[in-house]
Amino acid sequence: MAEQALRVGIIGCMGRMGQAVAAVVTAADGLVLAGGIDRAGNPGQRLAGTGAPIVADIAGLFEISDVVIDFSAPGSTAAHAEAATVAATALVVGTTGLTASDHAALDAAGKSTAIVQAGNFSLGVNLLMALTEEAARVLGDDWDIDILEMHHRHKVDAPSGTALMLGEAAAKGRGVDLDTVACKARDGVIGERPVGEIGFATLRGGAVIGEHEVIFASDSERLVLSHKAENRSLFAKGAVVAARFAATVPAGRYSMQDVLKLQLGGQ
Amino acid sequence: MAEQALRVGIIGCMGRMGQAVAAVVTAADGLVLAGGIDRAGNPGQRLAGTGAPIVADIAGLFEISDVVIDFSAPGSTAAHAEAATVAATALVVGTTGLTASDHAALDAAGKSTAIVQAGNFSLGVNLLMALTEEAARVLGDDWDIDILEMHHRHKVDAPSGTALMLGEAAAKGRGVDLDTVACKARDGVIGERPVGEIGFATLRGGAVIGEHEVIFASDSERLVLSHKAENRSLFAKGAVVAARFAATVPAGRYSMQDVLKLQLGGQ
Amino acid sequence: MAEQALRVGIIGCMGRMGQAVAAVVTAADGLVLAGGIDRAGNPGQRLAGTGAPIVADIAGLFEISDVVIDFSAPGSTAAHAEAATVAATALVVGTTGLTASDHAALDAAGKSTAIVQAGNFSLGVNLLMALTEEAARVLGDDWDIDILEMHHRHKVDAPSGTALMLGEAAAKGRGVDLDTVACKARDGVIGERPVGEIGFATLRGGAVIGEHEVIFASDSERLVLSHKAENRSLFAKGAVVAARFAATVPAGRYSMQDVLKLQLGGQ
Amino acid sequence: MAEQALRVGIIGCMGRMGQAVAAVVTAADGLVLAGGIDRAGNPGQRLAGTGAPIVADIAGLFEISDVVIDFSAPGSTAAHAEAATVAATALVVGTTGLTASDHAALDAAGKSTAIVQAGNFSLGVNLLMALTEEAARVLGDDWDIDILEMHHRHKVDAPSGTALMLGEAAAKGRGVDLDTVACKARDGVIGERPVGEIGFATLRGGAVIGEHEVIFASDSERLVLSHKAENRSLFAKGAVVAARFAATVPAGRYSMQDVLKLQLGGQ
Repeated sequence: MAEQALRVGIIGCMGRMGQAVAAVVTAADGLVLAGGIDRAGNPGQRLAGTGAPIVADIAGLFEISDVVIDFSAPGSTAAHAEAATVAATALVVGTTGLTASDHAALDAAGKSTAIVQAGNFSLGVNLLMALTEEAARVLGDDWDIDILEMHHRHKVDAPSGTALMLGEAAAKGRGVDLDTVACKARDGVIGERPVGEIGFATLRGGAVIGEHEVIFASDSERLVLSHKAENRSLFAKGAVVAARFAATVPAGRYSMQDVLKLQLGGQ
Repeated sequence: MAEQALRVGIIGCMGRMGQAVAAVVTAADGLVLAGGIDRAGNPGQRLAGTGAPIVADIAGLFEISDVVIDFSAPGSTAAHAEAATVAATALVVGTTGLTASDHAALDAAGKSTAIVQAGNFSLGVNLLMALTEEAARVLGDDWDIDILEMHHRHKVDAPSGTALMLGEAAAKGRGVDLDTVACKARDGVIGERPVGEIGFATLRGGAVIGEHEVIFASDSERLVLSHKAENRSLFAKGAVVAARFAATVPAGRYSMQDVLKLQLGGQ
Repeated sequence: MAEQALRVGIIGCMGRMGQAVAAVVTAADGLVLAGGIDRAGNPGQRLAGTGAPIVADIAGLFEISDVVIDFSAPGSTAAHAEAATVAATALVVGTTGLTASDHAALDAAGKSTAIVQAGNFSLGVNLLMALTEEAARVLGDDWDIDILEMHHRHKVDAPSGTALMLGEAAAKGRGVDLDTVACKARDGVIGERPVGEIGFATLRGGAVIGEHEVIFASDSERLVLSHKAENRSLFAKGAVVAARFAATVPAGRYSMQDVLKLQLGGQ
Repeated sequence: MAEQALRVGIIGCMGRMGQAVAAVVTAADGLVLAGGIDRAGNPGQRLAGTGAPIVADIAGLFEISDVVIDFSAPGSTAAHAEAATVAATALVVGTTGLTASDHAALDAAGKSTAIVQAGNFSLGVNLLMALTEEAARVLGDDWDIDILEMHHRHKVDAPSGTALMLGEAAAKGRGVDLDTVACKARDGVIGERPVGEIGFATLRGGAVIGEHEVIFASDSERLVLSHKAENRSLFAKGAVVAARFAATVPAGRYSMQDVLKLQLGGQ
């Protein structure tokens, strides 16, 4: 079975997300951890708790893998995209802070191999984004949209990146630009809520991993779509779902919406 | 403008729902209340607060209306469907407890005029049903589905009809039969939750008009889709939205999903 | 029974709250609507839907009442307090925007008759305030406190007055000053949540009458105390509960906490 | 400082709860892990990750400890209570399934040393119980009480023990017997909600550690008191809080309500 198993490589294998991905791969059926690479790792070592090697160079990692999952720091994404092209290996990119030229490199690589890139690999969050866009498309702007999020006390920015992605999804569904309708916080005498506004509210406290709520409120009813992260493993699990998907589709540039087949109504 | 206004008739115009519909029609732009009929009403009277007449016979009501909204008691639905056919008037049916032969009569009328029939005219509830089906289709059965509802202390049955419709939507999305997987209530030593079960839980209390929550729970995240009725007008408003729709579409048998253009993913 | 019934007078009887109070008094057992006064009313008229007179002067209203409920505009509170003293009639004050001299006048009146004054007469909100103070007293500041509120789209200020009163209750329980620890809204790179902060978040939308949530979050659990107004009658009902209380207690200055006998722990 | 640190012993130190307690004690300021005992442990070994010895006999453990935390299986509680008496060591008992004679033994030990016993050591849950009792005491039975709980898919019984404890707290606040007013689940045509009923509803799914909600619903407002376990460490942390308490109070039999000083109103 090991020969048929999908060989998964990890860039950034010693980081928090890389280790979590390694654990999910190791525990999964039909997957084998091929190896990893990390700027903090010594080639020749074994990845903790596995027999998989830490390798010396990127090209080598792509050669021994059917799909590579990249959770490294920004800066090398274009190089990884090129290595994926050369080795004809699928690539899943979870690195954040990508630049326009990183995206161009991923687009180029997508012409010859399967590339999945996402800002959040949670299945639930991505489904919530699709449902939010769909609901915003269906409901008129007599339905007010507000987005609430809560995270632990250590989070330094507000609203969360995921809350903003949900706002983008709502704006897209409505055919408006988020920046022109967003209200990021409310304080003081702010007047009546403008029609078409997409509002945000931020809670912070304790150890909350991440909770998001999209509220659609008309003058007679309320639709609320929400997501709660129960534990931190969900992001690693989602990346592994993306890797399985990437290994089976034709060359192309894909999002988590594609992975989840979330082509909802309106097309 | 009155000539161009859509003329709306109401069957059951003196019932609780009929009166609410009359109020919404009267307040709406582009609609005019043509008249009503009610077993408790005297022909020749005016509908309370309006200049619209209470008429003597069904055929007459259909003749003076572009669309008729029916919130009467079951038993006459087939006769109403035939009257709609004869007058080539659109018909919106909100009567509950329809039989198979009622449905057949509506299907037949749908060959020559536009018929919309629904168990719940709330826009939000119908959208929730569509989103629930979609989420159930996308998420595997490693996501447990439970449906929670709360209603006021006077409601005599559990779970609510809407909760069961949400269960049907989830079952349809999963491609299973609700009856074979439903757990309507939990009490005692019930064992671990079976894979694939669709569970229900019922709260009762106070004056809650109606709240429904569909919970999808995996071992690392939770997606919750919910709806709250803010006041009782939403059902009348939804029926009027359906009436506007019925007046503009070709002959056919339609649901609130059609009215809301809720053809989501998977087609 | 009419002789034994408690005679209730209303100042501001034609305003939105005054009318709501009149409806509750009329429907209640053991109460009789004695009369009302309103700057917009004609003495000699009857209060709509009742046999109670609109009277010409404040002194007259206090004379025919066992307890007077005042929901008029600010400015006359001191005069009403003096009239209560002269007539030895109990007084319930729901007028908002009271000044220090208004409060002094109420304190003075409290020496000879029963005075209840509150910013919010909802039983649930007042109980929530007491429970919030109690929880804040018991839980250390390793529990973060955030207060969330949602109101309809027409509300012009944020956070709501009730949210701020809940913040005051939490601050009192902790023995701190709200102004020095409050964070009214979060937006941008705000850094980690300071220990001891009491945060606020504001949602606006639709027709929501008023919902408040007090969240206590530690690094392993969350306690959430919340209140939802189901309809607008609750404020009038609470004022009438206060009136019954005022009619039976000795002279004194009372709050809704006293009415509800909410002397919780810590004494 | 080690001399002044409070010496904590653990019975059942190799069980899931015992290990969690050991981790909390080790990480805490002012506490030192004195030793442990476990039927599965070899005396002379060290407790994993600590320098604390696994000891051979119960009497020995009490001698080297200022307070002992007992999370062992039922059956030996009386023996532990006697050992606590002999050594004049405080005892915290989290063992569940205690018999009447176990309770009698703990009562007897409480005459000479401090004994804390609880079914749930979560600070938040115990506070929720106190607040529930208080709210039920204040609010009349025109407020319906329902208790909702959600746990993971592996929980085999419904409602949860904690939900029933919350029901007991509500019943106590109201001065009624829970068994005569409880409705454990609702299904079918059940009729209107009886006045005074305390209802339960149960959700199951995913990995939810434990969430409880106590709902008080009148005909115009709703008060909801809820608790969420964020992770499993909270029970161990609560036991350690109880241990610190036990080491400082006079001999006596105490509950978590005492530990939390939750003597709320009504006494």
